Amino acid sequence: MKLEAFIVDNIPLIKEGDNLAEIICNNTKLEDGDIVVIASTIVAKSEGQIFRLKDITPTDKAVEIANKNRFSPAFVQAVLERSRDCLVDSPIMLVETYNGNVCINAGLDDSNIENGFILDLPKNPDVSAEYIGLHLQNLTSKKIGVVITDTNGRAFKTGQTGVAVGLYHIPAIKNWRGKNDLYGHALDITEEAIADEIAGTANLLMGEGDGGTPVVIIRGLDVLTGKKVSVKNMYRPDDKDIIKKGLRSLNQSNL
Amino acid sequence: MKLEAFIVDNIPLIKEGDNLAEIICNNTKLEDGDIVVIASTIVAKSEGQIFRLKDITPTDKAVEIANKNRFSPAFVQAVLERSRDCLVDSPIMLVETYNGNVCINAGLDDSNIENGFILDLPKNPDVSAEYIGLHLQNLTSKKIGVVITDTNGRAFKTGQTGVAVGLYHIPAIKNWRGKNDLYGHALDITEEAIADEIAGTANLLMGEGDGGTPVVIIRGLDVLTGKKVSVKNMYRPDDKDIIKKGLRSLNQSNL
Repeated sequence: MKLEAFIVDNIPLIKEGDNLAEIICNNTKLEDGDIVVIASTIVAKSEGQIFRLKDITPTDKAVEIANKNRFSPAFVQAVLERSRDCLVDSPIMLVETYNGNVCINAGLDDSNIENGFILDLPKNPDVSAEYIGLHLQNLTSKKIGVVITDTNGRAFKTGQTGVAVGLYHIPAIKNWRGKNDLYGHALDITEEAIADEIAGTANLLMGEGDGGTPVVIIRGLDVLTGKKVSVKNMYRPDDKDIIKKGLRSLNQSNL
Repeated sequence: MKLEAFIVDNIPLIKEGDNLAEIICNNTKLEDGDIVVIASTIVAKSEGQIFRLKDITPTDKAVEIANKNRFSPAFVQAVLERSRDCLVDSPIMLVETYNGNVCINAGLDDSNIENGFILDLPKNPDVSAEYIGLHLQNLTSKKIGVVITDTNGRAFKTGQTGVAVGLYHIPAIKNWRGKNDLYGHALDITEEAIADEIAGTANLLMGEGDGGTPVVIIRGLDVLTGKKVSVKNMYRPDDKDIIKKGLRSLNQSNL
């Protein structure tokens, strides 16, 4: 078994209204079963998910947190507005977004965008993935999967990895339950987070800087499904999350 | 830019004393710059890192924890002996191993091994990676990187991903500091956990069950370094780890 991952060259700087599926198809020839991995930055740009900090009025709560963590009150306000829970507010802001992902700064990004502007995440990345995926399939008549990615930090380790934030035709988790191991015992380690592994594979090629290449094709993995998928299937339920419980016991300033 | 990842076929069931480098070279032709990704299970087996639970005498502390989490006292004892800190002891055991990795059950594994036996991690996976890497380079006269992998769960999300537990010639983290983004600003998101992304890429091909294929080659990534590397470079220092702090505030039963 073998997989290939390669960059789609010549993706231009994306602006609101650009049709990503057309741009991708104009620059590469997709095959049946391909996984198209797209950085959330260009999806957000194509959807116009950009705002200016100076248009935001911070609440007292945002000002109070900003006094602790030294971020600008408007930035803190923007993070809070995108979060249903603030697990840590200082010295970093670790929040759970309304989509369910736990990440720093609710995924807001001030790199790779013009000065004074902040790039949001796509409003609903699963819907964005489906929208782009349907366009790609219409243009190519092939069966295509889509993974929209961001980069997130991790617990206990430094560094960031690519993670899936929106999915189309790719399950978040591959279930090995019911399989036997090499000695015939039933396996109890049963769930593989394939969507995040796909995002990490693509991130090895995407780069972060001015050589940024936001679209990667992964070919050769037999993981596409016709079923409805959602990235939300991998977010751990609140009542089974002991790490959140620990963080809440440290910081009672929840929203 | 492009990467390929492929399985090395025909790896036999590994036993103590087997020379993994020879076995790998007999079954694939390595090229300069290749990354050889090896599941820790076969490294541990080749090193004889296998033990029997019935040879272990649990302490009172292990019995007390086993009464809470319903594991066998001998298994709890085995986990505690491999841990410098037990962050959570029930209903799961989340520990920090002496090597610095935070994981469930100190990485002990009772799948893919004969009944009654438990498979340990390699004693020092960085040393194992170096040992295998030096052998591979001697056999091939090529520059080769090695990543020894395990699968670990993650915070806030279900599912497991491949992670690096031992490294040779592959940096744990790629540093983007000093690079500019597409608009010429200095990037502040600067560290990419490439070793774990490589492990995740390989895990997409390795599988968990009886089709288990424990060696994957990754070709085309320009990430090899001549410098001394260690997987420990990515473990977050204790005093900067707010998640550990939260877990300790819940559970004072540290070792």
